[in-house]
Amino acid sequence: MSKPSIPQGTRDFNAEVVRKRQYILNYIKAVFELYAFEPLETPAMENLDTLIGKYGDEGDKLMFKILNNGISNPKNTEKSIAGFEKVLQGKSSSDLTERALKYDLTIPFARYVAMNHGRLIFPYRRYQVQPVWRGDSPQKGRYREFTQCDADVVGSRSLFNELELACIYHDVFTRLKINDYELRVNSRKILTALAEVCAEEEKVTAITTAIDKLDKIGIERVKEELREKELNEDQLSIIESYLTMNNCPAEEMTNEKKLTFLKDFFRDSDDGQKGIEELEFLIKNLPAANNIIIDLTLARGLNYYTGIIFEAKAPPTVKIGSIGGGGRYDDLTGLFDVPGIPGVGISFGVDRIYDVLTELNLFPEEVEAGITALFFNMGETESRFAFEVMQQLRQNGISAELYHEFAKVNKQFQYAERKKIAYAVIIGSKEIEQKYCLVKNLATGLQEVVVFERLNDFFNSK
Amino acid sequence: MSKPSIPQGTRDFNAEVVRKRQYILNYIKAVFELYAFEPLETPAMENLDTLIGKYGDEGDKLMFKILNNGISNPKNTEKSIAGFEKVLQGKSSSDLTERALKYDLTIPFARYVAMNHGRLIFPYRRYQVQPVWRGDSPQKGRYREFTQCDADVVGSRSLFNELELACIYHDVFTRLKINDYELRVNSRKILTALAEVCAEEEKVTAITTAIDKLDKIGIERVKEELREKELNEDQLSIIESYLTMNNCPAEEMTNEKKLTFLKDFFRDSDDGQKGIEELEFLIKNLPAANNIIIDLTLARGLNYYTGIIFEAKAPPTVKIGSIGGGGRYDDLTGLFDVPGIPGVGISFGVDRIYDVLTELNLFPEEVEAGITALFFNMGETESRFAFEVMQQLRQNGISAELYHEFAKVNKQFQYAERKKIAYAVIIGSKEIEQKYCLVKNLATGLQEVVVFERLNDFFNSK
Repeated sequence: MSKPSIPQGTRDFNAEVVRKRQYILNYIKAVFELYAFEPLETPAMENLDTLIGKYGDEGDKLMFKILNNGISNPKNTEKSIAGFEKVLQGKSSSDLTERALKYDLTIPFARYVAMNHGRLIFPYRRYQVQPVWRGDSPQKGRYREFTQCDADVVGSRSLFNELELACIYHDVFTRLKINDYELRVNSRKILTALAEVCAEEEKVTAITTAIDKLDKIGIERVKEELREKELNEDQLSIIESYLTMNNCPAEEMTNEKKLTFLKDFFRDSDDGQKGIEELEFLIKNLPAANNIIIDLTLARGLNYYTGIIFEAKAPPTVKIGSIGGGGRYDDLTGLFDVPGIPGVGISFGVDRIYDVLTELNLFPEEVEAGITALFFNMGETESRFAFEVMQQLRQNGISAELYHEFAKVNKQFQYAERKKIAYAVIIGSKEIEQKYCLVKNLATGLQEVVVFERLNDFFNSK
Repeated sequence: MSKPSIPQGTRDFNAEVVRKRQYILNYIKAVFELYAFEPLETPAMENLDTLIGKYGDEGDKLMFKILNNGISNPKNTEKSIAGFEKVLQGKSSSDLTERALKYDLTIPFARYVAMNHGRLIFPYRRYQVQPVWRGDSPQKGRYREFTQCDADVVGSRSLFNELELACIYHDVFTRLKINDYELRVNSRKILTALAEVCAEEEKVTAITTAIDKLDKIGIERVKEELREKELNEDQLSIIESYLTMNNCPAEEMTNEKKLTFLKDFFRDSDDGQKGIEELEFLIKNLPAANNIIIDLTLARGLNYYTGIIFEAKAPPTVKIGSIGGGGRYDDLTGLFDVPGIPGVGISFGVDRIYDVLTELNLFPEEVEAGITALFFNMGETESRFAFEVMQQLRQNGISAELYHEFAKVNKQFQYAERKKIAYAVIIGSKEIEQKYCLVKNLATGLQEVVVFERLNDFFNSK
């Protein structure tokens, strides 16, 4: 037997990590619930039919496919593949695999809505917090199994949905004390309008892709890339003026000034005007405290977006980048032959948020709090007695443990300290007789005598 | 595109089901925490090496294996398998698959302990609540993806662990109001002793397997099966007297009487005496309220058990059977070359417990409670105003929703009713002017006038 290990890009979460992740997830779920979103859970596996072709060739390749049962019994890993060849002879690839692990939460959600649209009440507001799997090369901050947290509203075109989703970002991040987050916002309609103004409507994707890289490669290389896509110098100068406006320092270029610029810039474009209206509705109705910033270079990779798009960014002091994103899409369930259900949704990047909280030291101490009391094991009779006393504490909601065997007091203290247990409770034969116990606060070293019937109260008051 | 569906044996959980499952899981986790167990999460996938050969041939067959990336790109399902054959030519089966979905929580836990035993503090008490996957034929109550809830203590031989695990069953089931559960208990040492007394030590598995079926097939067919295994009539009569004692009605045969019988029956067997001591420790130290029953026919399928074994059964009025089980094992991590770590653990069957609560109508009404307030949409200005009022409620912890578009009041009432929303909050132009809103309790029909600044208090007092 070789040394045990886990698959590349996957992780075990110990108690500390589980608790810290729960701390994040509980806030996200609580805010989703306040905003009247309902939970949904879908299976880890989907039919291959449901997933294939929805994420481009790259997605099809990175998806984890599940071998059909009966195809392989690889108990003996020495065995040649000849056996499989025989099994597979003359069959199609669907005989090899018909299922895959889910790649995101959006397509399974669309599949669920398409399957249940006759029964669902629209607008349907659902949230979903589940793992997804991708066969990317693992690297820092990128895993093959990771958790997504999505909230979507489908069956409504109202911009109130976008407004609420922006508020959800604010509420979650400020509850987590990530006060300096940034919520970047743009509209796909504005990007379409930009292509229109350049008279290159069919090149919207090329333009968007190039603009998306502005931060990384600078204006000159963006222009170069666009020249390669056969945009002429007039068109490039239009795009440059659009980008220049966006890139003014924040103090000069407020959201309001950007809107004024846009209104003039896109005065002849219907798409542009619609996109501006969307942004204006958001900016006007959001409380000033929300850190929303119109970012005209924001594009978001996924092609299904059609309106407002969001990207939540970690505070600039930590170099972590995007910690969430989303936007409006028009016809997601159309993929499953149920057209005409528009939607809008956002997602939180839990792993990245975890890194932000770690770097900024924002996990509260209580998250790591361990067990409240360790009852010492002072011998056979004493331990049975201690067990009964301990059971009363547990019934009262106080977490407690009895040291598992009779051992030197020092060893038991060491165990308590290593496990960060708050109190030691010592009941020896003398204590049983006199009906009290010694309770030692392991952080301060303070020791108190507490009579048995007051032990519950003692811990309740802590 | 064919009609969307999900893989056989898997399920979508809608909001109602998620909430009911959470209700169960929250109690189980809370009790685990009170008993000083720490959470652990392991990845959905494990290396095939870790899992293969641990669950018998059946397990190896039913395990869901994951196709290695790059082996298949089955976008075109018409494509013949020839392409794969080429890829696989001359390679071993590990080139086809190297990973599988976890089949239970115990082996991944053993793998984790073996990988981390230098860092862990022993005794290590962990709980784990995660899905597992098995390619069984789906049938009522049996799924291909289901949740296991395990608690194990490793690194301790103390019987206090067994005692605590029995208490955990009691605490969880009584909190869930499953008061008439039964906790069946036996010791593997007693089954070994029975084989010893029959002078057929090597037939302990055959004897155990036959006895395990007593409930279903009756004593005569058990004897028949044992005759086929070449036990003689003397041996059969020993086994029959053992079983007869067990099968007396409960009122005649208390746990204490069973212990007395056992002490005599196994007076010459060391294993027997040890098994009896284990049972006696449990029976003597458990509060009388715990529904523990010594069941000498209890065997539990998994061969790694070596001491006390448990099986929790649903109340006899619902025909659901086992809702949990577990026991002591001696050397689980030995499978991964880390010998000498004994352990004991239990498991809760969440899906079965769900069915019990449904059949006995034990889910409290609050579990299904929906959103607290629907703010009606009475027009553009009114809805923006309502949105602001609603945001204050949400900040105050009250879940609320704004109807997404201006619509007839009746339509909005219908929506609220279908979604089981508790209150309708109506703010029209008159209400804005006069700074109050109409709040209608949708269950009672009672309508009240509440001034804006008292709205928080109004809902807090509900």
